[in-house]
Amino acid sequence: MYDEIITLLEEKQFNKARKEVLNYNEADIAEIIEDAIEEVSIEKAIILFRMLPKDISAEVFSFLSSDTKLEIINGITDKEIQYIVDELFFDDMIDLLEELPANVVKKILSRTEKEKRNLINQFLKYPVDSAGSLMTIEYVDLKKEMTVKESIEYLKEHGISKETIYTCYVMDSGRRLEGIVPLRQLIISEDDTVLKDIMDTDVISVNAFDDQEEIAKVFMKYDFIALPVVDKENRLVGIITIDDIVDVIEQENTEDFHRMAALMPSEKQYMGSSAFFLARQRIPWLLILMFSSIITGSIIGKFQLVLSQVIALVTFLPMVMGTGGNAGAQSSTLVIRGMAVGDIELSDILRVVWKEIKVSAIVGIFLSLFNFVRIYVVGGGSLLLAITVSLSLFLVVLSAKVIGGTLPIIAKKIGIDPAIMANPFIASLTDMISVTIYFILATILLGIG
Amino acid sequence: MYDEIITLLEEKQFNKARKEVLNYNEADIAEIIEDAIEEVSIEKAIILFRMLPKDISAEVFSFLSSDTKLEIINGITDKEIQYIVDELFFDDMIDLLEELPANVVKKILSRTEKEKRNLINQFLKYPVDSAGSLMTIEYVDLKKEMTVKESIEYLKEHGISKETIYTCYVMDSGRRLEGIVPLRQLIISEDDTVLKDIMDTDVISVNAFDDQEEIAKVFMKYDFIALPVVDKENRLVGIITIDDIVDVIEQENTEDFHRMAALMPSEKQYMGSSAFFLARQRIPWLLILMFSSIITGSIIGKFQLVLSQVIALVTFLPMVMGTGGNAGAQSSTLVIRGMAVGDIELSDILRVVWKEIKVSAIVGIFLSLFNFVRIYVVGGGSLLLAITVSLSLFLVVLSAKVIGGTLPIIAKKIGIDPAIMANPFIASLTDMISVTIYFILATILLGIG
Repeated sequence: MYDEIITLLEEKQFNKARKEVLNYNEADIAEIIEDAIEEVSIEKAIILFRMLPKDISAEVFSFLSSDTKLEIINGITDKEIQYIVDELFFDDMIDLLEELPANVVKKILSRTEKEKRNLINQFLKYPVDSAGSLMTIEYVDLKKEMTVKESIEYLKEHGISKETIYTCYVMDSGRRLEGIVPLRQLIISEDDTVLKDIMDTDVISVNAFDDQEEIAKVFMKYDFIALPVVDKENRLVGIITIDDIVDVIEQENTEDFHRMAALMPSEKQYMGSSAFFLARQRIPWLLILMFSSIITGSIIGKFQLVLSQVIALVTFLPMVMGTGGNAGAQSSTLVIRGMAVGDIELSDILRVVWKEIKVSAIVGIFLSLFNFVRIYVVGGGSLLLAITVSLSLFLVVLSAKVIGGTLPIIAKKIGIDPAIMANPFIASLTDMISVTIYFILATILLGIG
Repeated sequence: MYDEIITLLEEKQFNKARKEVLNYNEADIAEIIEDAIEEVSIEKAIILFRMLPKDISAEVFSFLSSDTKLEIINGITDKEIQYIVDELFFDDMIDLLEELPANVVKKILSRTEKEKRNLINQFLKYPVDSAGSLMTIEYVDLKKEMTVKESIEYLKEHGISKETIYTCYVMDSGRRLEGIVPLRQLIISEDDTVLKDIMDTDVISVNAFDDQEEIAKVFMKYDFIALPVVDKENRLVGIITIDDIVDVIEQENTEDFHRMAALMPSEKQYMGSSAFFLARQRIPWLLILMFSSIITGSIIGKFQLVLSQVIALVTFLPMVMGTGGNAGAQSSTLVIRGMAVGDIELSDILRVVWKEIKVSAIVGIFLSLFNFVRIYVVGGGSLLLAITVSLSLFLVVLSAKVIGGTLPIIAKKIGIDPAIMANPFIASLTDMISVTIYFILATILLGIG
């Protein structure tokens, strides 16, 4: 898509490349820089970045990935860093400072005016995934005695650099939040109307220490585009805007996808990660799950006698184990997702158990009958073997679905991320149960041992 | 949370319940209605809904789940339905009409004025997951010759019922989109400024037939809060707002989660679904995967001779198969997610293969050595058995990771949802490969057969 610019960079035609690049939106320019790092070289990408007009460079910077941000910071002068930091919206600046090495942060802060420095230090103290770390201080604060005309005048004077002026916040002298006025309301009201007569006092706000996942749920529930953040005395400390929440939603989803595939969650992009990094992300869970499958193996070992007498038993083992794992994974995924979107609450656990029992009765009977017919009627296998396989399958599906449905809820109750209780983990648990049920039934029904 | 209101409903104190309910935000009232359906009865929930003031009831309605919307439609009079339809934002109305039975839609349309009816019919023709089905017609359209003052006067007159007036769209006489003016820009500009001097002509728009997933990516890339939708002649036909996109993102993620856990995707909530519905959602994939595990079983059957001679082989089978499945699932999940968020492109396939080879070399050597030490050095097992298991493990991890990394990309290339190429499917594929590699190596190394 940006082939032409990439070619210009490869040919070191920086001025031409710069001219081409400026035809694009800042988000596109950020993408071009990322492409250039991957396809040309980091040095040339940085040269291109440094040639951008200053006001554009700061905005482009805010669209770059964390890795690229750090690379660029390492490749430009302190003065250029300072400029970017000053131009960024407050929330983007805090994000950047959180990721920079301590000595760089110190240098930047030493050049910042005292009042702003104190504010920055306060923001850096909020936990990484809290409302505090998401919010920005660029909002419009009005007083309830102001008229619509005065408010609009005030906006004209102060509003230009604000990240959002679409909701105005009305505060008392102690900075406690008293109400909100959507800009839409200001526009359609008469000039001499006083804010206190049009403001909405029924304000929904979040606390600066609330977790970002909970805040995303509030945004989704109420369809907000911005949300005020208050401290415990109900003083307004910042606002969160929907564009940052969209990022949070994608980030939380990625985290869940990773956890549910036995990966250590990471915000780093796949294409930009080294093989060692990716291997480190994968080995821990593979090891944990390996131990569990070693246990499954040793359970099978205990039944070697049955196995050696009816070697055909082993050919049905992948089916019984696999179906158990898949059945459990289905239930756990539905419950994990249901909790993530707010459909299932902790208190629903007994209702989930009952539902999973009913579902697994239907699924289990269907699959068992299917296999009975396949083994005994169509395949002409032994009746007792067919019963062993079908009955095991039914019991395995039942226990897998109940375990899959409840473990995520229990995990959440005791403070573990429910997403861990997904496919590989649930499947490795149900594997143990599957082989135990299967071989015990075989021992009894086939009369061996 | 809403226990008090639920109790009032149970005691049939509807007037008191109504009074209590009106203290809440419309989104909360919708939640109360949903709770009431679940915990009291659908009839009483409908009585409560019908007692709401008309203007509130339409907004509450827009927050309800699809199932509840249909239940309520069935429980109220045609006149009440008509009222709700008239009051809903255009996009919400289209969503509702898409889900209502044809005869109800017909009745509603027959009472709608002709111009609106034609528009509705046109909107109902857009594919379900297209921009057309997401967009609304409530936007502000201005002309480039208007001054700021005239524009604001126009907003005061027409703007109140618009879903968003934060971006104004400037069109020529043929309704072709010429530029946009953020409301922020209008506010801070001088009264006599002409729009064409302040409008942004570099407008990013989408086509009415574009897929909603692609549109979500545009929103995320550019941090927009609204996006114009045009037809192929670049005429503005509607706008899409970010709150609807947040829903799309969650819906697409849920679909991926479902696909990746061998479920038929469904938008129905877990708690509200019947056991039969849930069973139907689960059986198809369980059956498909069952066939694949039957094949795996029959591969094992072919090696019964090896197995019967070295029965200990079977105890390592769960570990080799499980690790293969998990290793493949890790790779496929990273690639599926990478494609969903735009990090991995179709053209990256060879780079992904090379990366997965490097990663699986590291992971494979680590796990193989670990098992060699465990079986031979610590466990005192046979050297050849230890080599068989370790070498199998290495080859299984390698092939699983390459398959897991490439299949999602190939799937996307040929138009299949890549999310299907996730854990259960990949694991069932790698199972076949695992047992084949394992038993062939065993036959060669243990000198049997």
